[in-house]
Amino acid sequence: MTDKAVRDAQNNAMFKDMYVHVDAMPWIPHPVVPGTHFKVLRTSAETGAWTVLFKNAKGSSVPRHEHLGAGEYFMLSGKAEVRGGAHEGGITAYAGDYGYEPSGAIHDTTCFPEDTVYLFTNHGPIKFIDDDDNTLFVLDWRGVRALEAQGLEKLAAPIAAE
Amino acid sequence: MTDKAVRDAQNNAMFKDMYVHVDAMPWIPHPVVPGTHFKVLRTSAETGAWTVLFKNAKGSSVPRHEHLGAGEYFMLSGKAEVRGGAHEGGITAYAGDYGYEPSGAIHDTTCFPEDTVYLFTNHGPIKFIDDDDNTLFVLDWRGVRALEAQGLEKLAAPIAAE
Amino acid sequence: MTDKAVRDAQNNAMFKDMYVHVDAMPWIPHPVVPGTHFKVLRTSAETGAWTVLFKNAKGSSVPRHEHLGAGEYFMLSGKAEVRGGAHEGGITAYAGDYGYEPSGAIHDTTCFPEDTVYLFTNHGPIKFIDDDDNTLFVLDWRGVRALEAQGLEKLAAPIAAE
Amino acid sequence: MTDKAVRDAQNNAMFKDMYVHVDAMPWIPHPVVPGTHFKVLRTSAETGAWTVLFKNAKGSSVPRHEHLGAGEYFMLSGKAEVRGGAHEGGITAYAGDYGYEPSGAIHDTTCFPEDTVYLFTNHGPIKFIDDDDNTLFVLDWRGVRALEAQGLEKLAAPIAAE
Repeated sequence: MTDKAVRDAQNNAMFKDMYVHVDAMPWIPHPVVPGTHFKVLRTSAETGAWTVLFKNAKGSSVPRHEHLGAGEYFMLSGKAEVRGGAHEGGITAYAGDYGYEPSGAIHDTTCFPEDTVYLFTNHGPIKFIDDDDNTLFVLDWRGVRALEAQGLEKLAAPIAAE
Repeated sequence: MTDKAVRDAQNNAMFKDMYVHVDAMPWIPHPVVPGTHFKVLRTSAETGAWTVLFKNAKGSSVPRHEHLGAGEYFMLSGKAEVRGGAHEGGITAYAGDYGYEPSGAIHDTTCFPEDTVYLFTNHGPIKFIDDDDNTLFVLDWRGVRALEAQGLEKLAAPIAAE
Repeated sequence: MTDKAVRDAQNNAMFKDMYVHVDAMPWIPHPVVPGTHFKVLRTSAETGAWTVLFKNAKGSSVPRHEHLGAGEYFMLSGKAEVRGGAHEGGITAYAGDYGYEPSGAIHDTTCFPEDTVYLFTNHGPIKFIDDDDNTLFVLDWRGVRALEAQGLEKLAAPIAAE
Repeated sequence: MTDKAVRDAQNNAMFKDMYVHVDAMPWIPHPVVPGTHFKVLRTSAETGAWTVLFKNAKGSSVPRHEHLGAGEYFMLSGKAEVRGGAHEGGITAYAGDYGYEPSGAIHDTTCFPEDTVYLFTNHGPIKFIDDDDNTLFVLDWRGVRALEAQGLEKLAAPIAAE
């Protein structure tokens, strides 16, 4: 190695790149929400951010929630209807689209009228709420890792799950 | 609207979703780096984060730099060789892959051996440096917007640019 | 003004300094937790961070909670016993001390054996929990502003409150 | 320990409180800026934030700079004149005051007309610039740790420094 390469390698040993070959990861069935699979790409204990790839079957949905941290998504395929979709004053997102959902936003059921894959980062927790805005469940990065562990168990024991 | 819908609409007027129909945006030629086009999806004055879609032609590259904020990427098509690529101890990223580059990481030239499109968020500035680690240019979210404005001018005045 | 001063003023009109003359603000009585007064110095809709000055009377306390965002404090006067205090394996913080409580940390009752004033920033929500870790209340920056509004009402209507 | 205490201890072993008894730390002389001492309370490799206690002698100052991350300060004693001070349209901050300087703000020399101690957090780098806005030096959390190491060497070898 050149001197520069040695110096860079020493620096980068302290600040390691993370790299995920996503295709090699299994799609994990969501243990609670039907029609939903996911792959956890990164979670941060320090900032509370979590980045997940979601695959939602046609007709599945994300339940009502409030963002306690901003969310960002990039649509890889399919279609999503946020806040009722464009025909009800909300957003209809198509493959290739990008959205940012600020902390504080309340999203009623988000629907997937087609099979959809999207990349999603949330910079903090999401609070699932009922129609009267009572808290049902607070999902933070640790909850995401717990869902992953539960889903992996299901994958590992397909017979027991029948 | 139902009461719930009215209440949600009032809340969300304070915390507005941002949505970008990316296909409708033009690819902006990078005013400095050859073989590079981009679309700016979001910049944040408060956190300094910026999210950009990059399209790099085969043979183009990103010059040597140090991350003063963490970077995240998702490969949409093509191939990227970070820190020399996998055959030199670095990373070769393929379509569908995800990476996280921590603050502090130093990346020598990143190469694109194929036409490549990737989504990129940087949580702060990037410092471009020479081989002796001298600072050449500090690119923050304002610099990203300045590059966008320069590239748009080029697009708008193709004849004058000849 | 010099040219430089004009140029700086134009820049800073876009990025305004915030400044709080804290002594001129009233101490607001906490509407729920006895023995506790506070002044809200800043809240951020975008990041969810909130910075508050707390004044706790001798014998008062902060109830059991989990950090859904990191907390930072600087002790201005008095004494705080975190996780039981130093004599039980926790921390006893004195005037002039600094602490950082990472996201994920669970703190049982924090006690103030003396009148105490401390500066506190939380980078996200705090989840108050019972002894079985059930969620009692999620306090985010909006909740902090709501507590401030309630406390100010109490201050403004002292007679009605009797 | 009770069951609850055991369970909390197991949790908190993963998310360790950081605590700094500040009075026990030495004041480190700034190796470059005269009249300035400091104590580094925390730096974060992940977010790039750094929290430092500064002690500035009467007549000392902070050179012209641009914030590449937001800054926050709390005045513990003395007086600071930001952007020329209140008599020139800027801010004069007194003991007990709080300020937030957004990313993007440009501050010409900040002056201390009295001995001053203040707590300062910057959420990212600071770019020191000359009167023509050319970059002189980019100070990030690693630079802060480097200044600390240089200052500690000076403290450890007082005779050699003469």
